[in-house]
Amino acid sequence: MEKNSFFQQGTMQMLSEGLLDGTITLKELMIHGDTGIGTGEGIDGELIILNGKGFKVNHKGEGIPLENAFKITFADVHFENYEKIDNVSSIELSKCLEEIKKRIVGTNIFFSVKIHGRFEVIHTRSSKKSNKPYPGIEKIANNQVEFYSKDVTGTLLSYYSPSLYQGITVAGFHSHFISDDYTVGGHVIFSKIKHASVYLQKFASFTQNTPIQNIDYLNADLSDISKLDNIIKNVE
Amino acid sequence: MEKNSFFQQGTMQMLSEGLLDGTITLKELMIHGDTGIGTGEGIDGELIILNGKGFKVNHKGEGIPLENAFKITFADVHFENYEKIDNVSSIELSKCLEEIKKRIVGTNIFFSVKIHGRFEVIHTRSSKKSNKPYPGIEKIANNQVEFYSKDVTGTLLSYYSPSLYQGITVAGFHSHFISDDYTVGGHVIFSKIKHASVYLQKFASFTQNTPIQNIDYLNADLSDISKLDNIIKNVE
Repeated sequence: MEKNSFFQQGTMQMLSEGLLDGTITLKELMIHGDTGIGTGEGIDGELIILNGKGFKVNHKGEGIPLENAFKITFADVHFENYEKIDNVSSIELSKCLEEIKKRIVGTNIFFSVKIHGRFEVIHTRSSKKSNKPYPGIEKIANNQVEFYSKDVTGTLLSYYSPSLYQGITVAGFHSHFISDDYTVGGHVIFSKIKHASVYLQKFASFTQNTPIQNIDYLNADLSDISKLDNIIKNVE
Repeated sequence: MEKNSFFQQGTMQMLSEGLLDGTITLKELMIHGDTGIGTGEGIDGELIILNGKGFKVNHKGEGIPLENAFKITFADVHFENYEKIDNVSSIELSKCLEEIKKRIVGTNIFFSVKIHGRFEVIHTRSSKKSNKPYPGIEKIANNQVEFYSKDVTGTLLSYYSPSLYQGITVAGFHSHFISDDYTVGGHVIFSKIKHASVYLQKFASFTQNTPIQNIDYLNADLSDISKLDNIIKNVE
């Protein structure tokens, strides 16, 4: 089990081009990690995997435990080996993440941040599963639902990628959340932390897996990355 | 040993920005494959690894066996599991590679091609090692030497990457050559094949390793990829 490596199924560019088939099961994915984030087939919710257990935050904002056979379109996973680096209080998430970035020399290292504690505000979104033939990704963005919660205890999991990897990964931070009681969660849009413990894990390498058995993937034109920034902002 | 995966040390963007330290030894690299191509510290020649043995084609065009401790800046390696797909004769390399591409569904699969046989013409290049502080990569391009040979028996090894990965890998084909008697080789610019066997190996995934112990890598600004196409064409 590599502790300084993460595994990615699919790419952001695939989502951008509407390639939404589930191409790996939760069980297969977890060979490569016990911790992670992702999305199900047809953008079926926002996923978070903690301590080897997968949850989907559905379009009602509820956390649902996932079956082993649950199909996943895109995910980042790794084996947890975080180092506790800080306690924080009364800080916006974006500022907290920027502070963590300052502890990293340069901007060329992949890393993951885990934040557990009390969140004063947590603004998230999720999406209802779309069925095949999938609507364009812009329509899927319209299917998204946002959730605003206050005073929630839970875990935020984030992956940071250097800018060179935009389109393959999400350049910068990509964060999902779930509350300890699984009633609140999703892709994180905004948050203010009340008080929390902050954990960091750096990676030296990552493994990009591509679904070469998936005929839609094989035939797709993935060369135009001009739509990507918008998609990353609004869909994943 | 993963047979459908390849491993990459460093990125093309690192070479483009003059990050030329050797960050992995041949021995460490070969944990991840018995077959591959790359370059040594300071663009110290053009490397090829065949059957678990590494060679450097130096600036005189000669193939020199590598020591385990030889330091490598950039490399692609994998464990050989090729399938023989064709015999070819009297064909330009570029046309041969295009024909192989047509056998692959779409353009989104990473793969390697190995061609062994008689080469009517083989036009290659290599480079003399530069020492630290490294000159700009444009100056290194001026240090390169080209070699023109006729009627040579040898092995050409190529990696193909989808366009999305330009800057991380070389998008398209990236080919190195060495003759069976190790007297001719390097980065392949042009070739015409007399008669040869053609082998193909597809990959579902690749592992990108980054040198996070290297202070120059950590501090580099790798966000500008505008120079890349030129560098890839003229240096690696």
